[in-house]
Amino acid sequence: MVEVRDVDAMIDAIGRLVVRGAPAIGVAGAFGVAIAAQQAEREDLGPEHVRREAERIAAARPTAVNLAWAVRRVLARLDEGAAAVVAEAVAMADEDVETNRRLAARGADLLEELVVVPARVHTHCNTGGLATVEWGTALGIVRELNERGHLVSVTADETRPLLQGSRLTAFELADLGIEHRIVVDGAGPSVISRGLADAVLVGADRIAANGDVANKIGTYPLALAAARAGIPFIVAAPESTLDPATATGADIEIEERAEEEVLAFGGTRTAPAGSRAYNPAFDVTPADLVTAIVTERRVIRPAQGDRP
Amino acid sequence: MVEVRDVDAMIDAIGRLVVRGAPAIGVAGAFGVAIAAQQAEREDLGPEHVRREAERIAAARPTAVNLAWAVRRVLARLDEGAAAVVAEAVAMADEDVETNRRLAARGADLLEELVVVPARVHTHCNTGGLATVEWGTALGIVRELNERGHLVSVTADETRPLLQGSRLTAFELADLGIEHRIVVDGAGPSVISRGLADAVLVGADRIAANGDVANKIGTYPLALAAARAGIPFIVAAPESTLDPATATGADIEIEERAEEEVLAFGGTRTAPAGSRAYNPAFDVTPADLVTAIVTERRVIRPAQGDRP
Repeated sequence: MVEVRDVDAMIDAIGRLVVRGAPAIGVAGAFGVAIAAQQAEREDLGPEHVRREAERIAAARPTAVNLAWAVRRVLARLDEGAAAVVAEAVAMADEDVETNRRLAARGADLLEELVVVPARVHTHCNTGGLATVEWGTALGIVRELNERGHLVSVTADETRPLLQGSRLTAFELADLGIEHRIVVDGAGPSVISRGLADAVLVGADRIAANGDVANKIGTYPLALAAARAGIPFIVAAPESTLDPATATGADIEIEERAEEEVLAFGGTRTAPAGSRAYNPAFDVTPADLVTAIVTERRVIRPAQGDRP
Repeated sequence: MVEVRDVDAMIDAIGRLVVRGAPAIGVAGAFGVAIAAQQAEREDLGPEHVRREAERIAAARPTAVNLAWAVRRVLARLDEGAAAVVAEAVAMADEDVETNRRLAARGADLLEELVVVPARVHTHCNTGGLATVEWGTALGIVRELNERGHLVSVTADETRPLLQGSRLTAFELADLGIEHRIVVDGAGPSVISRGLADAVLVGADRIAANGDVANKIGTYPLALAAARAGIPFIVAAPESTLDPATATGADIEIEERAEEEVLAFGGTRTAPAGSRAYNPAFDVTPADLVTAIVTERRVIRPAQGDRP
């Protein structure tokens, strides 16, 4: 449990992935601005201080567009005073739950349309209640399918380097009593090619105007394998993840994180002292491999030429 | 350093991956039979004892065909006495070096034909001197390219669950003074899609009659990404890895290893107590994604319809 009482602590929490998952990062960023607005009011620092702090917060992680979107949204209430900014952040947290519930219902409907249920789902990283305020995006669909009795089991990539799959997703699945197996990231595509999954369900950190999807590193190989196997590759994300200002995946800034995340494990170095790593945190899945993007409002089918 | 003095110790060393890499496993298996032959002669146990031990050795790991091949080859000398079996195993170890040197030269020639050199190579798992008796297969080609001044750098997948990439390949590359970066397995396909590699070079554990290739789990996604990016996907393996008795990849037995390899890291459990894993040690890359198979004798081009 981390208590965040100032902007620096919030930026640190977002940067070190204490708070993670695009929707959760967005809400955390909104509360970061709320904290800055309260401080500015208390110490009479003026709105420019809040705007500078908001810029710093928005830059804490470059790839997830929800962060910049959420910061902009609460900042729009700044003229009404700190209390209005706080109220907007609280409203966003409440909305996130409702948004994801609607998204989950729509996603479960889509799955029922595209595959024979009960279905076996493959997923990557963590997109559940731990990545959102409560209900989850891709894992929210899994949860909804399970409640409808239309889920057999889940395979989940462990998601190196930070193991969100084996630490967080497996934890949530175990908690929900959903049968699941963890696989190494390299095995996800063979789970698909060997016919052990009926659909792939993932989240997103940013979706470009042409339907290209940035998501946790290791997502793209699943899309390649799903296309070859002829099973649906479905992206679950709130509307706030759609970024009309970014034309294509090539325009998305991909965060590169510390080499140490790859070279060591739990503080113990696994690679030789002289070796270096390349650690992009996200990859881009081209639109033509994306069967559907499900939001709280609609289903977009990029592989069929639909554009967000 | 592990000293192996009896058949049980050799089977254990192969099973626990103390000895690993298809060619090295083959030679180790040959020496295992040599040990059994010497013991049988000493204790007057008869040839049937040696044949039973040889069967046990051949079954230590099911996927790499080199093991069964090597065991058969030394067993063929059993009628001539234990000394002949030992001599055959020694000959095989010597040949392995020569085989891989020839394979490396042929592979480097092929790379020079297919891509602009100096080139950037992406690889998976370990296929160097630590996986063979000395020179290496895929990493032997890298070494040869480097000696010709035709190599820029290498990116290597860490290769979960056992990290042969970050522990062994990075060690060998550092030792050879070759510039390299380690990436998580999920990042290999984006290294390729982002234009950061000119070719993919991997080894193989068994190649079916139709050109399908079984290799370390995580190989298949690289082949999918290479095909999409239009860069060569090259498999380096001695002729002994070709298995005409196996019709297609679907007929290759894929070894499933202990769940614990995925669920824990360095003895520390990373997954929740109730979670289980699925841990296939190999995947199958279909022939149409394989630009070329390079052996010590020839180049086969499965993607163009060539068959081994």
